[in-house]
Amino acid sequence: MTGAYVHGYDARESERLRDQAGSLVELLHADTSYPAGSAVLEAGCGVGAQTVTLARNSPGARFTSVDISGASLRQAQAKVEAAGLANVAFREADVFDLPYGPASFDHVFVCFVLEHLARPAEALARLKTVLRTGGSMTVIEGDHGSAYFHPDSAAAREAIRCQVELQRRAGGNAMIGRQVYPLLVGAGFEAVRVSPRMVYADASRPQLVEGFTRRTFTAMVEGVRASAIAAGLTEPAHFDAGIRDLYRTAEADGVFCYTFFKGVGEKPR
Amino acid sequence: MTGAYVHGYDARESERLRDQAGSLVELLHADTSYPAGSAVLEAGCGVGAQTVTLARNSPGARFTSVDISGASLRQAQAKVEAAGLANVAFREADVFDLPYGPASFDHVFVCFVLEHLARPAEALARLKTVLRTGGSMTVIEGDHGSAYFHPDSAAAREAIRCQVELQRRAGGNAMIGRQVYPLLVGAGFEAVRVSPRMVYADASRPQLVEGFTRRTFTAMVEGVRASAIAAGLTEPAHFDAGIRDLYRTAEADGVFCYTFFKGVGEKPR
Repeated sequence: MTGAYVHGYDARESERLRDQAGSLVELLHADTSYPAGSAVLEAGCGVGAQTVTLARNSPGARFTSVDISGASLRQAQAKVEAAGLANVAFREADVFDLPYGPASFDHVFVCFVLEHLARPAEALARLKTVLRTGGSMTVIEGDHGSAYFHPDSAAAREAIRCQVELQRRAGGNAMIGRQVYPLLVGAGFEAVRVSPRMVYADASRPQLVEGFTRRTFTAMVEGVRASAIAAGLTEPAHFDAGIRDLYRTAEADGVFCYTFFKGVGEKPR
Repeated sequence: MTGAYVHGYDARESERLRDQAGSLVELLHADTSYPAGSAVLEAGCGVGAQTVTLARNSPGARFTSVDISGASLRQAQAKVEAAGLANVAFREADVFDLPYGPASFDHVFVCFVLEHLARPAEALARLKTVLRTGGSMTVIEGDHGSAYFHPDSAAAREAIRCQVELQRRAGGNAMIGRQVYPLLVGAGFEAVRVSPRMVYADASRPQLVEGFTRRTFTAMVEGVRASAIAAGLTEPAHFDAGIRDLYRTAEADGVFCYTFFKGVGEKPR
């Protein structure tokens, strides 16, 4: 079959990025940098989890990071100032009602935002209007349906489903990662390229086991315990068994897999 | 070897394995090459789907490819001869009763074999005895639990589960990929490193959509239709809806994800 090399290269490149990544931040963001002088909108910066990395990787670019939460913005601003970065401006704004005119930005970056929106396609369309033609749109999303592990556990899968269901009831979609490609294409972006970023954690990668399996993914699922029980989605003992089984995958013979999807498209000229 | 080979031995299956190797050859095998003069055992070569690639990538190595099926071996041999390769010897043999003494090989290679065995850990232990100390063991396996797609479909997931269940009843494990690390460590190999090889297919990668989503994965699941119905695992209309939904993921806005796991370990000195 022709073309196999190109696809294989993408997968190996993804693997290389993962192996080189000292952290999830590198895995997701190491290949994002913007030219000096360019204006970049970070839409939905939250508490600035990505903002410092973005601004540091593109010291000559000017970032505008917006979020609907003023409290989150203040945390983001504190992080950026603590890092000694001066190339980020913050503004309280709704992705669906941006205070910017057409073509105000050279590039737009959206990370872990679409998963929380009831109308992700419309959000991309709105963001496209403030992007200049030829500018890039970058989207990064996780997908909880990509989580699998050893030892497998029905209770662990059900605990994850509690998180998915709560997010769905809040209007979001915790399994949106696999849809990054159709969302970008559907919003009219061109030259769309999606690359999965798989986190694979076994005992030979202790930092990922600790940093991702335990402290990121399992801690996140554990965090919905009260809400899931209150919503009648699970029983305390059953949920707790699922969490124990998720921590079990972080033991010496355990394996945990999860995939993020990063898509980049261009606004047609 | 225990258990029937769930994929069967018919012509279409042979074609599927060839297509699979053709589309994934770089992804799975590009980083496997053996030094000139080394003796390599390919255990469970089947119809030779990987043998030509292995032998071509390591022209100075001497391969011994064994399989329990004489008919499969003859097909493998024909492929190798058609490729003009002279560095492969074939022999009919059972992985659990190998006709080789201790430390007969410098390296051992096993691909898509453990998934069919009721005692994969014991198979690795047997293979370890014919490997010299310091030699490498390479294992490649898929994991049907790693398959997810857009649009999501309960019927499609259930069709895949039919395949998983049939393989389980035949003594195998179609979700063994995630266990490659603990299996290798458990068998006493050292410096074990597992790297996932994710196949991500969207419309921007048409060869992969055709070669993997349609002609490899969906064709494989489709191939268990009669067995799954005969075993009472599904109803014809429901199974067919699942297959339609799997083909649906190969349309312009569809996405299909699957992951293979490649592990390499060393026999302790």
